[in-house]
Amino acid sequence: MLHLVIAEAELELVPRAIRDHPAIVNYARRRGKKPEEVLLDSTYHHSALKKLDDGERRGRPDIVHICLLNALESIANKEDKLRVYVHTRNDEVIHIKPETRIPRNYNRFVGLMESLFKKGAVPEELELLRLERKSLGKLVEEIKPDGVFVMHERGRLVKPPEFGKILADLENPLVIVGGFPHGDFRSETPWEKISLYNVPLMAWTIVNEIIINFEHWVL
Amino acid sequence: MLHLVIAEAELELVPRAIRDHPAIVNYARRRGKKPEEVLLDSTYHHSALKKLDDGERRGRPDIVHICLLNALESIANKEDKLRVYVHTRNDEVIHIKPETRIPRNYNRFVGLMESLFKKGAVPEELELLRLERKSLGKLVEEIKPDGVFVMHERGRLVKPPEFGKILADLENPLVIVGGFPHGDFRSETPWEKISLYNVPLMAWTIVNEIIINFEHWVL
Repeated sequence: MLHLVIAEAELELVPRAIRDHPAIVNYARRRGKKPEEVLLDSTYHHSALKKLDDGERRGRPDIVHICLLNALESIANKEDKLRVYVHTRNDEVIHIKPETRIPRNYNRFVGLMESLFKKGAVPEELELLRLERKSLGKLVEEIKPDGVFVMHERGRLVKPPEFGKILADLENPLVIVGGFPHGDFRSETPWEKISLYNVPLMAWTIVNEIIINFEHWVL
Repeated sequence: MLHLVIAEAELELVPRAIRDHPAIVNYARRRGKKPEEVLLDSTYHHSALKKLDDGERRGRPDIVHICLLNALESIANKEDKLRVYVHTRNDEVIHIKPETRIPRNYNRFVGLMESLFKKGAVPEELELLRLERKSLGKLVEEIKPDGVFVMHERGRLVKPPEFGKILADLENPLVIVGGFPHGDFRSETPWEKISLYNVPLMAWTIVNEIIINFEHWVL
């Protein structure tokens, strides 16, 4: 089973410090929600983000959305050889059942995440998505992988098919992909660092390369 | 060079027949546009779509968006081994320069497509995206491929790595992926039909499988 973690994902509700910023207040009102109920989104909250630490990389639910659509609709997932997790910048982990059908429409996905942050699990009975306070280290420990790899711009350069083979040769490999637009992990990632290409790739491109090159050897 | 065509994509402006439907009128007003200027979108125009032929599959810019984000950010594209085209249900073709950076945010992508349908090319000087009236057959003829394949649920079952090899052994292969949510191509596709898996896959999953299994043999 391949475990894929989208880590330090820039997925969070609007932080307290900017809840009274006009960009946030107007956006929330337009959507009929309170400022503390809406997801931070760089497309709409650009001016408010300037007032936050790391403002230039925060508010990117779109990255999580595209990564999940690719991972959950992959052949590896349909063959029950994949588990996907989202870890956020605020040390929450979203556990995702493999049969989950993520909304295709971005705005619906945003609404679903807002509901998840509010309720802790959605939909209420099935709990396809479940949110818990948990660090990346704790998640890795729980999964008990027999190999952990962090995808990193300055990691050891391994060709994608070769990396797929490395994963396929393990029972329970775990791969960590940064769910942020650029820059480095903010917390410690004391595991082997791997790079698939000589220039930085988008998170969803790395997700696709990992899954499909893994499939190559296990299907 | 691998040529990838997202064909019969469900990407169109709101058709004349439903421009006065309340769901459309309200949606356009909310966005500060005229009904004839907005993209048909099944998420918001569900009730209006019921009045159209093929209404249950139309209005899916999200499929095009995800396919393009995956294809244009792929390693194959960065290595200049890929060309991507979108052919729509109304026989328009969008030519896309490989260096194009598609908006990550869905709503911005929708705005860009609306602008493209209005102006014929965006941005005006660079013309990264260019829209022309053109049938799928005409597009295939222009590209002059040495092999054409249609991804099809009932096509010959070929394992993805094997299909990647078939493509890599050609100079100018062209692959057609349906840009609609389900069902069959509406027009004739008189080319070899290929299936990668025993159950239907989403368009973007097929795009990923094709590109990455092609990369496997050419990089």
